[in-house]
This record gives sequence, C-alpha cells and structure tokens, in this order.
Amino acid sequence: MTTSEAVALLERYRAGEITADEVLRVFRVAPYVDLGFARVDTHRALRKGFPEVVFGAGKTPEQVVAIARRIWKNSGRVLVTRVTASHARAMRKAFKRAVHHEIARCIVVEREPLPKLEGTIAVLCAGTSDLPVAEEAAVTAEVMGNRVERIYDVGVAGLHRLLSHLDVITKANVVIAVAGMEGALPSVVAGLVSRPVIAVPTSVGYGASLGGLAALLTMLNSCASGVTVVNIDNGFGAGYAASQINALAAVTK
Amino acid sequence: MTTSEAVALLERYRAGEITADEVLRVFRVAPYVDLGFARVDTHRALRKGFPEVVFGAGKTPEQVVAIARRIWKNSGRVLVTRVTASHARAMRKAFKRAVHHEIARCIVVEREPLPKLEGTIAVLCAGTSDLPVAEEAAVTAEVMGNRVERIYDVGVAGLHRLLSHLDVITKANVVIAVAGMEGALPSVVAGLVSRPVIAVPTSVGYGASLGGLAALLTMLNSCASGVTVVNIDNGFGAGYAASQINALAAVTK
Amino acid sequence: MTTSEAVALLERYRAGEITADEVLRVFRVAPYVDLGFARVDTHRALRKGFPEVVFGAGKTPEQVVAIARRIWKNSGRVLVTRVTASHARAMRKAFKRAVHHEIARCIVVEREPLPKLEGTIAVLCAGTSDLPVAEEAAVTAEVMGNRVERIYDVGVAGLHRLLSHLDVITKANVVIAVAGMEGALPSVVAGLVSRPVIAVPTSVGYGASLGGLAALLTMLNSCASGVTVVNIDNGFGAGYAASQINALAAVTK
Amino acid sequence: MTTSEAVALLERYRAGEITADEVLRVFRVAPYVDLGFARVDTHRALRKGFPEVVFGAGKTPEQVVAIARRIWKNSGRVLVTRVTASHARAMRKAFKRAVHHEIARCIVVEREPLPKLEGTIAVLCAGTSDLPVAEEAAVTAEVMGNRVERIYDVGVAGLHRLLSHLDVITKANVVIAVAGMEGALPSVVAGLVSRPVIAVPTSVGYGASLGGLAALLTMLNSCASGVTVVNIDNGFGAGYAASQINALAAVTK
Amino acid sequence: MTTSEAVALLERYRAGEITADEVLRVFRVAPYVDLGFARVDTHRALRKGFPEVVFGAGKTPEQVVAIARRIWKNSGRVLVTRVTASHARAMRKAFKRAVHHEIARCIVVEREPLPKLEGTIAVLCAGTSDLPVAEEAAVTAEVMGNRVERIYDVGVAGLHRLLSHLDVITKANVVIAVAGMEGALPSVVAGLVSRPVIAVPTSVGYGASLGGLAALLTMLNSCASGVTVVNIDNGFGAGYAASQINALAAVTK
Amino acid sequence: MTTSEAVALLERYRAGEITADEVLRVFRVAPYVDLGFARVDTHRALRKGFPEVVFGAGKTPEQVVAIARRIWKNSGRVLVTRVTASHARAMRKAFKRAVHHEIARCIVVEREPLPKLEGTIAVLCAGTSDLPVAEEAAVTAEVMGNRVERIYDVGVAGLHRLLSHLDVITKANVVIAVAGMEGALPSVVAGLVSRPVIAVPTSVGYGASLGGLAALLTMLNSCASGVTVVNIDNGFGAGYAASQINALAAVTK
Amino acid sequence: MTTSEAVALLERYRAGEITADEVLRVFRVAPYVDLGFARVDTHRALRKGFPEVVFGAGKTPEQVVAIARRIWKNSGRVLVTRVTASHARAMRKAFKRAVHHEIARCIVVEREPLPKLEGTIAVLCAGTSDLPVAEEAAVTAEVMGNRVERIYDVGVAGLHRLLSHLDVITKANVVIAVAGMEGALPSVVAGLVSRPVIAVPTSVGYGASLGGLAALLTMLNSCASGVTVVNIDNGFGAGYAASQINALAAVTK
Amino acid sequence: MTTSEAVALLERYRAGEITADEVLRVFRVAPYVDLGFARVDTHRALRKGFPEVVFGAGKTPEQVVAIARRIWKNSGRVLVTRVTASHARAMRKAFKRAVHHEIARCIVVEREPLPKLEGTIAVLCAGTSDLPVAEEAAVTAEVMGNRVERIYDVGVAGLHRLLSHLDVITKANVVIAVAGMEGALPSVVAGLVSRPVIAVPTSVGYGASLGGLAALLTMLNSCASGVTVVNIDNGFGAGYAASQINALAAVTK
Repeated sequence: MTTSEAVALLERYRAGEITADEVLRVFRVAPYVDLGFARVDTHRALRKGFPEVVFGAGKTPEQVVAIARRIWKNSGRVLVTRVTASHARAMRKAFKRAVHHEIARCIVVEREPLPKLEGTIAVLCAGTSDLPVAEEAAVTAEVMGNRVERIYDVGVAGLHRLLSHLDVITKANVVIAVAGMEGALPSVVAGLVSRPVIAVPTSVGYGASLGGLAALLTMLNSCASGVTVVNIDNGFGAGYAASQINALAAVTK
Repeated sequence: MTTSEAVALLERYRAGEITADEVLRVFRVAPYVDLGFARVDTHRALRKGFPEVVFGAGKTPEQVVAIARRIWKNSGRVLVTRVTASHARAMRKAFKRAVHHEIARCIVVEREPLPKLEGTIAVLCAGTSDLPVAEEAAVTAEVMGNRVERIYDVGVAGLHRLLSHLDVITKANVVIAVAGMEGALPSVVAGLVSRPVIAVPTSVGYGASLGGLAALLTMLNSCASGVTVVNIDNGFGAGYAASQINALAAVTK
Repeated sequence: MTTSEAVALLERYRAGEITADEVLRVFRVAPYVDLGFARVDTHRALRKGFPEVVFGAGKTPEQVVAIARRIWKNSGRVLVTRVTASHARAMRKAFKRAVHHEIARCIVVEREPLPKLEGTIAVLCAGTSDLPVAEEAAVTAEVMGNRVERIYDVGVAGLHRLLSHLDVITKANVVIAVAGMEGALPSVVAGLVSRPVIAVPTSVGYGASLGGLAALLTMLNSCASGVTVVNIDNGFGAGYAASQINALAAVTK
Repeated sequence: MTTSEAVALLERYRAGEITADEVLRVFRVAPYVDLGFARVDTHRALRKGFPEVVFGAGKTPEQVVAIARRIWKNSGRVLVTRVTASHARAMRKAFKRAVHHEIARCIVVEREPLPKLEGTIAVLCAGTSDLPVAEEAAVTAEVMGNRVERIYDVGVAGLHRLLSHLDVITKANVVIAVAGMEGALPSVVAGLVSRPVIAVPTSVGYGASLGGLAALLTMLNSCASGVTVVNIDNGFGAGYAASQINALAAVTK
Repeated sequence: MTTSEAVALLERYRAGEITADEVLRVFRVAPYVDLGFARVDTHRALRKGFPEVVFGAGKTPEQVVAIARRIWKNSGRVLVTRVTASHARAMRKAFKRAVHHEIARCIVVEREPLPKLEGTIAVLCAGTSDLPVAEEAAVTAEVMGNRVERIYDVGVAGLHRLLSHLDVITKANVVIAVAGMEGALPSVVAGLVSRPVIAVPTSVGYGASLGGLAALLTMLNSCASGVTVVNIDNGFGAGYAASQINALAAVTK
Repeated sequence: MTTSEAVALLERYRAGEITADEVLRVFRVAPYVDLGFARVDTHRALRKGFPEVVFGAGKTPEQVVAIARRIWKNSGRVLVTRVTASHARAMRKAFKRAVHHEIARCIVVEREPLPKLEGTIAVLCAGTSDLPVAEEAAVTAEVMGNRVERIYDVGVAGLHRLLSHLDVITKANVVIAVAGMEGALPSVVAGLVSRPVIAVPTSVGYGASLGGLAALLTMLNSCASGVTVVNIDNGFGAGYAASQINALAAVTK
Repeated sequence: MTTSEAVALLERYRAGEITADEVLRVFRVAPYVDLGFARVDTHRALRKGFPEVVFGAGKTPEQVVAIARRIWKNSGRVLVTRVTASHARAMRKAFKRAVHHEIARCIVVEREPLPKLEGTIAVLCAGTSDLPVAEEAAVTAEVMGNRVERIYDVGVAGLHRLLSHLDVITKANVVIAVAGMEGALPSVVAGLVSRPVIAVPTSVGYGASLGGLAALLTMLNSCASGVTVVNIDNGFGAGYAASQINALAAVTK
Repeated sequence: MTTSEAVALLERYRAGEITADEVLRVFRVAPYVDLGFARVDTHRALRKGFPEVVFGAGKTPEQVVAIARRIWKNSGRVLVTRVTASHARAMRKAFKRAVHHEIARCIVVEREPLPKLEGTIAVLCAGTSDLPVAEEAAVTAEVMGNRVERIYDVGVAGLHRLLSHLDVITKANVVIAVAGMEGALPSVVAGLVSRPVIAVPTSVGYGASLGGLAALLTMLNSCASGVTVVNIDNGFGAGYAASQINALAAVTK
C-alpha cells in the first residue's frame, strides 16, 4: 500500500464511506506489505546503483537469463556470480553489454558503470589458487562503485612480498584478505593496518584443510583486533560488506 | 631507532667517522625496529585515544594491575576485558578512576572520556543470557568514542519486539547483532538494514548448541548480504571492528 | 496366526488331540507372528489410504517398478520418492496413471486420490534452491490426503515476504518450514504461530554449511518453542509427520 | 496501540484535529506494536491457560522469582524449568503454591490446574538416567493441560519390557521417546505406532556418546517414518510440541 | 506368566470355565511377559552364573545398595561397576562378602565364585594410565568365570616388552587390548595372534586425543583382520564380550 | 632361517668352524625372520584353509590377478573383495574356477571348498541397501568354512519381521548385524541373544547420516552388552572376526 | 635495493646531492625489499641447489610449463609435484631432460643431480596404497641431494617385516613413516630408533578413516617421543623437512 | 638374556649337556628379550645423559616420587613434566637437588647438568598465555643438553616484534614455534628461516579455538615448507624432537 493509497483510504473514512473498523482491518494487514515497500524504497535511496545479484550456481542458463532480464528492466544493472561457461554463453547472447569476468566466475551487465566512490578497497590473496575468490570479491566491489586495489600472491610464508605493498594496503578504507590452507594472512594484515579487515577463507588446500574449515577457524581465532569473517569461498559476501563500509565512509561525508 | 638517531648516524658517516658498510649494517637490522615505531606512530595518529586493551582471563590480579599501570602511563586510558571480581577489586584499589562494568565483565580507566563520534553503533542481542557479550561489545565501542544504542532481548522468536525498534536500528552506522542458540538474529537484521552487520555468536545454549558452534555456523551461512562474523563470545572484537568502521565514517568526512 | 487358527488350535487341545505343551509351544512362537499381523491390521485401519512408499535412490528402474507393482496390487496407491529420469520413464511405462512430480522428484500412482482432510498443512521454504525438498514434503502430504498451502521463497532476509503470508500460515494445522544455508526460517515462523512447526534443513549452501549440518544445528537450537526437526533434505519425513498430526486432528474430531 | 486508541486517533483525524500525515506516521510505527499485541491476543485465545515459562539455568534465584512474579500477575500460572535447589527455596518462599518437581527439575505455580484435554501423551524413556529429561517433558505436558502416561525404563536392549506396554503406547495421541546412549528407542516405537513420535536425545552415556550427539544422530537418521527430533536434553521442548499436537486434536474436535 | 500358570489357564478352558476368547485375550498380552521370562530362562541356562550388573555412575549409594540387594536375592552374585568411595562404603556395610576392586572401580559380591572355564582371556594394556579400564575388563571377565592373564604396560613404543609376552598372548582364546593416546596396540597384537582381539580405546591422553576419539578411530581403522571395537573406556563391555566368546568355546566342546 | 639351518649353524659351531660370537650375531638378526616364518607356520596350522585376501579397491585388474596367482600357488584358495566389473572379467579369464559374488562384490577361487564347521553364523541386515555389506560378510565367512544363515531386511522399524526369525538367530554361535541409517539393529538383537554380536555400520543413508558415522556411533553406544563394532562398511572384517570366533568354538571342542 | 645501490645512495648523500631526509625516506621503504632480497640471498647460500617447487594440482599444463621455465632459467632445477598425465606430456615436450616419476606423481628436471649428502633418509610405508605419498617424499628428498632408503609394505599388522629391516632404519639420520588406515607405524618405529621420525598420514582407508583424519590423530597422539607430523598425504612436506634435518647434520660437520 | 648367558648356553651345548633343540627353544623366545636389552644398550650410547621422563599428570605425588627414585638410581637425571604444587613439594622433600620450573610445570633433578651441545634451539611463542607450553619445551631441551634461546610474545599481529629477533632465530639449528588462537606463527617463521620448524599448537583461546584444534589445523596446513607439528600443548614432545635434531647435528660432526 502506497502512501497515496493510504491517504485515499483515510479520506474515504472521513467522508463516511467506510467505518473506523474497516480502516483498521486494512492497516492491520497493511504494515507487512508496507514494510516491504518501505524497505525497497529506503534501500533504493541508500543503495542507489547497487546491482541486484543472481547466484548462478545450480540454476539453468535459461533461469539465469530470465531473472537477469527482470532485474535489468528495474535497474539497468545485473551481477551474476558463480557462472559456468554455458551461463556465460546464454547471457552474452541475451545481453550485448554482458561482460564475462572468467577468473571471478562473474558476469556483469551495466547501462553505464556507477561513478566511483573516493576511497579504495584493497583485495589481497595469499596464493594463486585463491584468485577466483579474490576476483569475485574485487568484481563485486567494482560493480558496486568502488575502486579496488588488487594485491595478489602475498602469503605469509613470503612476508617480504606482503610488506613491499604496505603503502597501498594502509591507504585503503577496507581490506579484504583472502586465504586458503592455513589462512594466516588476515591476522598478519590486521596487525599492520588500522582499518577493518574482512577475512575470506577459501577451500584451497588438501589433507586436514577440511575444505576450508581450517582456514575459517584460523581467521575466527585471529589474535589481531578488527578482523571479521565471511563464509568459505564467499568472495561476493566480502565484496558486498566491504562496499557497504566504503559507501558508509562516502555517504557520511 | 628514532629519526634523529638515524640522522646522527648519517652525519657520522658524512664526517667520515664510520664507513658505508657500517651504516648499511645498522639499517639492515633497523627496519624492523623502525617498522615497530613507525607502526605505533601511524597508529597513534589514526587511533588517537583508542585504549590499549588487557585481556583479563587467565591473568592474576597483580599481572592485570601491572600491565594496566604501564598502559595508563602511556595513554591515560585502559580497558580490561573478561575481569573477575578479584581483578575488579585489585584494579579499583590501584586506580581511583576505575569503573567496573559488571555485566560486561570490563573495567575502564580514563583520564577523561573520548569526545563522541557522530554516528551511532546499534548493539542488539537476542536473549538476556547474551547480555554479557553484548555489553562487552557496547562498552568497548563506548570507550573507543562511539555512541551506542542498546536494543536487547529482541530474538527472532518474538519478531514484533525487533521490528518495534526498526527506526533506531536503521539509523545506526553499524549494527552488532549478538545471539546464541540458533543465532538467527543477524540474518533477520541484515535483511532490514543497509549498513554493515557484525554478527557475534555466543556460547549460550545447550544440547547441540556445541558451545556456540551452532550459532557461529548459522551466522557464517547467513543468506543476507552484508553480514560478517567474529569468534564465539567475542564481544570485544565486534565492538572494536564496529568502532573501526564508525571511525572510518567520521575520519573520511 | 489368525484368531480362527488360534481358536482351532484350542479346540484341538480341548478335543485331546494335542497336549497343553504343544499348545504352549505354538503360542510361545506365535506372538511375534501375531504381532506382525496385528500391526498391519491396526495400521490398515488407522492409516487407511496412506500409500506405502518406495525410496527410489539407489534402486534400479526395474526394482522400483517391481516393488511398485506389489504395493499397487495391495493398496492401489504408490508413492516413489527420489526418482531419476529413468525411474520416471520406467514407471510411466508400467503404470498409465503414473504422475511424475519433477521438482519433488516423486512419482504418484493412484486409482483415485484420497478424500481431503479438513485442515491444511502449510509448506514454507526459504529459497528457490530449497524447492525440491519442499515439494517432496508437499507431494507426500497431498498423496496422504492433506490440503497443502505452498508459500515459497520467504527467507528471513526478506521478512516482509514472510509476513505478508501470515494469515495463511496461522490458519494451518501444521507448518513445515524448509530452509538451507543458515536455516533460521523455522524459528521465526514458530514465533508467529501457535501450531506445531516441523523444520527441514536442506543441504543447500556452500562453505561452512557443511552439507546442511549448519541448518540442522540452527533448527535444533531454535529459541522458539514448538519446533521439531527431521533429517537433512528429508522432505518426505516432514510431509509424513505433518500428515500424522493433521490426520490426528481429523481422526479425533 | 489498542483498538480503542486507534479508533480515537481516527476520530481526531475525522474531527480535523490531526492531518492524514500524522495518522500515517503513527500507523507506520504502530503495526509492530500492534503485531505484538495482536499476537499475544490471538495466542491467548488459542493457548489459553498455557503457562509462560522461565528457563532457570544461569539465572539467580532473585531473577527467577522476579520474572515468575510478573508472569503470575498476568496469568496465574508459572512453569520454571532447570531449577537448582536454591531456585526452589526462593520460589517456595515467594509462592505458597509452588510445587517443586525434583526429578524434573521444575517448579510449577498454579491458581488451579488447567482442565485436562481428552487424549493422552505417552512419555517413554530408555533408562533410569534419562528420567530427569523424561520428567521435564511429562511435567511440561501436564501443566499445559494434558494427561500423561509415563512408561519408563523400556530400552531396546530389553524389548519385552517395551512390548508389554504396547496397549498404552498405541492409545496415546502423541509419543515422546527419550533416550541416551545409542538412542534407538524412537525408531522402534515409531515402527509400532501410527501416531507422531517426538524423539528426545539425552546426554546420558560415556565414551563416544559425545554428550548426546550420538543419540541425536541416531534419531535424525531413524528409518521409521513419523519421527521428529528436538535438541539434546530438551524435555521441555518435547513436552511443549507434544502439547501443541494434542491440543490441536482437542481444538479441532 | 509361568508355564504352570499357562497350563492352568488351558485346563480351566478345557474344563469349560473360560471361553476360547478369554484364553486368547490372555495370550495376546502374555507373549511380551512370556518373552521376558522366556528370555531370562533361556539366558539363565546359557549364562548360568553370570552376574547381573549395576552401573554405579550417577547413582546414589542407597540406590546402588537397593538394586544390589534385589539382584543378590535372585542370583547370589552382584557386580557393580564405576563405583566411588561412597558406593564402596555403603556396599561393604550392606554386604559382608563385598570385595572392592579399587583400581577397576568395581565391587563384587558372590556366595561363591563361579567354577573357572578352561581357556584364558588375555588383557593387555598400553600404559599405566589405562589400568582402570583394563582392570574393569579383567574383573568383569573373572567374575563371569574366566581365567584372566594380565599383561600391562606393553605399549607399542616399547615393542620388546610386548613381544616378550608373546607366548601367553598367543595361548589365550580371546585378547582384550586396551590403549589410549594413539591406540595402536590392538593392530600390532592382532597381527601376532590368530584369535579374536577386542579393542578398548581409553580417554587417556591430551591435546588432540579428543577424549579417546583418536584411539577409537585408530582401532576402527585397524589394518589387521580380526579386531572388533567397543566404546571408549568401556572395559566392562570388552570383558563381557570376551567372556561370551570364551564361554562359547567352552559350551560348544 | 629354518630350523634345519639353525641346527646346521650350531653343528658348525660345535665343530669349531665358527665362534660363539658368530653364532650370536646370526641369532640376533634371525629372530625377526624367524618370527615371520614361525608366525606363518603357527597360523597355517591354526587357520588351515583360510584364504589370504586381496582388497581389490584401488588396484588394477592386472595387479589383482598377479597377486591372486601368487596366493593361489601357495594355498589353492583366493578371496578378492571390493571388486569391480573389470576385476571380475580379468579374474574369470585368469581362473576357470573363479566365482563372482556380484552383490557381495567378491570373487572366490577355490580348489575345493573347506569342510564346514559345525556352528552357524547368522548375518542380519536392516535394509535392502545394506545387502552388499552383509553379503561381503556372509561370503567371507563361507569361504572360511562357516555355515551362514542370512536374515535380511529386518530393520527395527518393523520389529515383527526380526522377531519372527528369533529361533534361527538364537541358535547361531555368532551374530553379525549390519545396519545403516540409525544403526539400531545390533542393540535390539544383542538384547535378544546371549551370543557375541558383531555390529557393522554401513554408509547407507543421507543427510546427517554422515557417511555411516551416525550408525557407527549408535553401535558403539549400544546399551546392550556383548556388542563389538567394526569399521563402516567393513563386511569383510566382520565376517573374518565372526569366523575366528566360530572357529574357536570348533577348535576347542 | 642491492648493496651497491645502497652505497651509491650514501655516496650521493655524502656528496651533498641529497639530504639525510631523502636517504631515510628510501631506507624506510627499502627494508621490505631488502628483506626480500636478503632472504633470497641467504637462502640461496644455505639451500644451494634446492629446487624451487611447483604444486601441479589445479594448474593447467600450460601454467605448469610456464612456471617451470622461469624456475629453470634461475636455477637449472625444477620439481613439479602432483602431476597428471597431461602435465607430464606437456613437461616432457618442453624439457628434454624431464623425468616423470609416475608413482610419486612428480616430474624432475635437472641440469645435473645435486651431489649426495652423506647421511641417509629412510622412507617407510605401511601398505602398497601408501606408495604414491611415500614416493613423493622419497623423490623430493632425492632431488634435494639426499640418499634415500625405501622400506615399503611394513605395516604394524606384520611386525616381522618391519623388524627385519631394523638395521637400515636405525642407521638413517631421519625416518619418514608413511601410513594410512590406523596410522600406527610411526609410533612403533619411534620406539625402535633414536632419530627424528616424521609421520605422514595418508588418506588411504575407508569408513571411519575420515579421509586420513584417523591416521593423523593417531600420529599426533603417538606415545613415542620424537614423532612430528605433517599434513595428510603431504609427502613433499615430509621429504622437505627430512632434507632440512639431514642437511643440518651435513652443514654442521 | 645377556651375551654371557648366551655364550654359556652355547658352551653347555658344545659340552653335550643340552641338545641343539634345547638351544633353539631358548633362542626362539630370547630375541624379544634380547631386543629389549639391545635397544636399551644402543640407546644408552646414543642418548647418553638424556633423562628418562615422568609424565606427572594423573599420578599421585607418591607415585611420582617412587618412579623418580627408580630413574634416579639408573641415570642420575630425572625430568618430571606436568607437575602440580603437591608433586613439587613431594619431589623437593625426596630430592635435595630437585629444581621446580614453575611456569614450565616441570621438575628437574640432576647430579650435574649435561655438557651443552654447540648449536642453539630457538623457542618462540606468540602470546604470554602460551608461556607454560613454551617453557616446557625449553626446559626439556635444556635438560637434554641444548642451549635454548627464548623469544616470547612475538605473535604475528605485531610483526615488528618478531622481525626484530630475526638474527637470533636464523642462527638456531631448530626453531620451536608455540602458538594458540589462530596459530599462524610457525608459517611466518618458516618463511623466514631455512631450518626445521617444529610447531606446537596450544589450547589457549576461546570460542571456536576448539581447545587448540584451530591452531593445530592451521599448523598442519601451513603453506610454508619445513613445518612439522606435535600435539596440542605438547611442549615436551617439541623439546624432545628438537633435541634429537640438534643432537643429530652434533653427533654427525
């Protein structure tokens, strides 16, 4: 129920066309609907330009295209994550503007990119096998209007590589640290910077890496303050949360 | 090695008192020391007024007081977390200004509180048993200079209580959502707001709550975007990360 | 041993044809047999019309058809769950009346549907990926003679969608709440209704969802009273238990 | 906001004392409050006489008494679960009518017991060590107005004891089956009856019983249809859910 | 119902005092009772002299004594396992003949010991910390009428100690191998003998011994054929199973 | 070193051809070799006719045939477990006498079957999906010279089926109880018989069956005395251990 | 920054071309770079001839060849682990000298092998299925310049085979003990020798071997002193660590 | 059997007092005994001066003293680990020379300390809570004759502290890296040095540290080569293994 519909209802009541009871019966149900619309409205204002996102995994190419079309109509911006080759083919056929980020396993369709926020998000990853997750985070952040600094292959077993990028890292508003195996990167990074660090464990590793659980536990138990964690391989979640933080900085200026 | 010491060294070299080799031998070791000081300096600028923190658990009252005294001398601000009654007694004896936040199990000693940042941090908790962890988060955020809105006992099994606070929650820069048992609060909250939500699982529960692991897993698997997670019962970590985000908003204005 | 056989036995004893010992030897073994028949009888009375069920997974199409034929002969009603495409082909070839519920991965063969009980069972699911499990629950309940209200895609991250269906949900005799990932739906629902809620965790998710264990733990630790849980992905079990409850309401009228 | 307050608001609008905008501002916030009251109202009608429940564990005797007093004032009926000896002393001091069920670790205070519903709930337990959990389930069900049949010490290793109670078990509307160690009781029972079986794993056992996880897994994996499960040691939850089912049967008559 | 009662019943039927229906009504219920007695009877014959066993843990001294008295009256032989000092005091007060095996944490009361079976059971343990579990196994086997050879402190890290007892071990009918920490003893032993080896993991160890789970897994994964496993610390279970095997050998002679 | 070689050595010493030191140097190394032969000798006597076994999984058909040929030459009896179709083809090509037990996934090659021992081994399984494991146990026991009674599809959810076979089960020397899902069968069986019960968990099930871990835990926590457990799906291990027990009975006659 | 560059910088300072501040600004950043080079330098001296290693798993043949080419240019020695058949083909095509160790799943390319260190490394494995991991350890150690003694198929269930190799084992500087299933080999070996034992659990096994976790736990809980453990299937890690130890012995001579 | 006893036996044979058979019967059993003595002898030579060790945990003060007395008599050197205050009192009463290392929870009794080996062992720990485990490692290494460099409180969240000790660390023959919480220290250290790193996880931490399992997994999954791991809190094991490696270096000179 929109505000004008609500006002119309009240006016019909004032005009004596309906009783107070009838008004209340509508309002008793309305709030939930209202809440829905309100939420969409508020969010549209706050998150303007943020793409709605399609999680591709487990969906057929046809389903992905259909959902993407609906989002495109509303917002002119679509992000599809976890795409396969056949998703990509179908999307490129359906959308001339579709850009396939292969390593990130993402497809982006945009009328025009969002204007970039001022601050940067640094995306670090420990090893080359962590690249797909790091790229998913980076592409997500970029399509949401952020400048992203990629600093890859800076695992803690070769500390000098990490330290040589310290300047770029300390200048970022938020740091996303992606790591599999022992997952020590976020702890080391959070000890070096004073900004929020979002840790992303990856399922890279073997033996007792337990599909990423080992890295996840490492990150949750970080002895460095300021580290928060997202689910294993959840590059999108990290990119999204980092974007919220970076946007907050920009919004509150 | 301070900058003036480094300059002195160079001058002795220029004066021919020492060789280039001797200069390099010093600098080869120095960086690490330098790094340390540099880091402290940088951080002091960025985090000015942020307290250094003592984790009380497993330390004797004497140890806590000794460490607190050293921090006090440097910064005039001490936060001790996870304190017992005897920690509290010893600290109050040693510091006239010591304030004991009993539920939060924290002690704060400050010359004067930090000036408050403009935005607010909302701290939500699901049940009364989650209070100690929520208060630890709230007190941590407050002593770091943040305004905190406490919204307690808003578990998802009584949705109306949560929804009745929606205004306050949506106005916050960051939301800390503390919950034990099934840990569903952060997902519901993140679906309602567009700001970062930091989820804190607590060890409250019994049976298959597995000491908080169930709530932790719930939060990591949240279907709502924008949720990041800290360790079980880690109220301090959540308060610290939320403060970093809120400070970022203020700093970047 | 039927009652008439037992009476015949006693008469032969009275007639002196057999000794007391011989009677007792028979009765000492009989109970187990008796128990078997008793049980089938009782159950046939109580559960009349309930289909016997074939779990298709891991069986060849030939095996499924053979078992289905035997059940069909007895009861004129067969439910096969977890069917593959080749199961479906074989069943449709063998039974003209076979209906293949593709999303539910079920096949139903019925002479005529059972008359519907009066109350309704509401089947909710959190995301579109939970559909197969939700549909398995719904089809199971329907073939057992229940009216089912499907309310899909009402995850807790979009609370307004759930709340807009509150009327239908509160009118149901039993609610089945299906959810993967963080599995918070049953807790939220059980806080809104006063009827039994059967929670079904699904293996949907990735990272630390641990193949549905995360959702399972969430549901077991629900802070809302009245939630009981079945195994991961066990839509059939939930539909069956919900049907027992709904039938109980009808039976006891 | 009560209905009369809402009507008064509308009348002030009709009288021109306030604008439509002011009415809408109130209603936009109201629903959540309304929802709360609505829910309590609805529930009061449906659940009339059901006690509100205090979970004693982790609360001080004073806290328990204070919460109990508030509930008592509203409803004249209080159930406190997981009470210690000191909870019991404090409650008996505060309430003359307080009855302490020692084995169940519960305290009940009632002006007068609820009239009993017609059907019965059968509470079974496997071993004497499971008694506290079984009694918690039984007392919960009784205070909610149910007739309870207790059938204890009927573990599956002595099948004859279980079978000798078959008549009572099959007559119950709902069966609660409580078991620790290997937790096989619910499977065996569900194979014998056609009514819903609520399985309660207990933390009784040693070695690889893993604090009840072994029994929990057994019950979730039951090969018998119609078994749903609650958390380890959650006798209250089972009693509550069973009561909902039994009440449903009565309500729908 | 005893056999003579059953015969009496049949005679009353033959005498025309009761109808066939009345006989059947009794027999329909009787079997379960019968089963019970039958089972006890059969078992008494097969297991003659085997004590009924009281699991002391979690029972009060009064409860233990009461149960022991009842068993004593029936069989003149009682084994109580997992006894505390106060159990022991109470039992010695109640039974003059009570023998307290302190290390085994068992109490045995016997009119006279059972005559010994011919074969031997070898009980091995890896370290001195495993003694209580090994002794529980040994005492259980002894009170059930077996000759027991104790070979202690023969962990695999000191292979020569184990090998020096090879003669005794290979002569035993059954071997019980008790080990904590890495639990490798049963594998090594089963490679040396051709008789059944019952492996008992103990909760001895620290760190990643996980309360005996590590040893349990080791034993289940034994690469040596002929190893079967009981629960962690379940010395009684091993002694009981070994006794069944040894008795089988004797019985079948 | 054979005995005659050892005697020859001693004779050379007595003849003064070698010194005592030289004799001792040989004997110091010999034992290990000796041990090997001794063991084979002893075992050959005790286990005469027992086949050596090839675990087929993970071996190429060529490897399996090569190992089988070597065993065949020594003993005229080969058991290959976990065979695939291509193993079977290769074995049948290499050995005319090869018999492929398809459900058991075993191949047996024998010059002539062993004479049967007197007692029987009962192999029970709970569901049809447990058949391959049950058959592996049965075939293993048969090829080792035991009479096997197969009693299949007697899960505890249909108790009457199990009870109707009670006579056969109680007459067996050893019972192997195979079950997946909740794994309750061994507990129920061990409560009914007085002979050793070897429990075999299977990986049959879904959801929280955890690949058989749930059933494994159930069996380890059995409340019935006399149950020992082998690894998940380890039908061979159960058949082997049962055979050792049955052979022990026969040997000791 | 190389030493000569650093000296040049200092000379420009002494010459008055740049200020002390400019020197310090360079050195403040330099250390990290320096650290990198320093480390490489130091290591090149210490580890001279040690190959840099490519982990093949998850890389395309093209990626492997490209990385191998870069390493080859620097060091004339490449070790690729976890190679597939297509990796091998591509490498053999690219490098004439490439040697494919098939069982070890490794490829080695060397201008000339390193001169062998004096001591030996003994590589033991328990079963033939552990061969790939054992060979990976052995090849790694060999390419790093060590003499390796392979002692395979010496599982603890056939103790005599292990003991017959005792001489070779005790002479080694380091022992690598590879075992799957119950993983008892390292404990037994460490009880027999006084040198460091590196334990490698393998994922060989089934049922409750949990993909090697069972063996891993066994090894961590070893009751024999001197055992350290690497990750499941990590033959390379064991070979590398053993090589470090053996090199240490040689270096310190 | 000692060598002289063996020679005597042979002489009796040569003298015709006993037959070859009798000699062989003795030797067939002897080897195991021999093995034992041989082993002790060999080891005494290799490990001369290494203390035998008593694990104090779970032993009474009297037991500890008794075992210590026996060891003292043989070797004049005793190390007791995991001692309580009462162990310490009893030991100091029994041995004038007993030194109680309180933080390490160790007691050392020595006639005179071993002469120190030349190389050093560096013991690092991440936090002050890890001190007891680090000290246990250090004291163990010292009493075994090693020089130990303690470098404490160098967690990876404050990298500069670690780096400032790089010189000492790189000079050590072996590094023991002790860490709880996220356990990242060993990875970082192993990336900086070329010597073996022994990682010791500690049970320090809370929440999802799982009693040290998180740190253990981190260390097993280290991306840095050359890390091997011991059990949680096993400072003794690390000290012992490090000592073996350091001794090896010395021995092989």
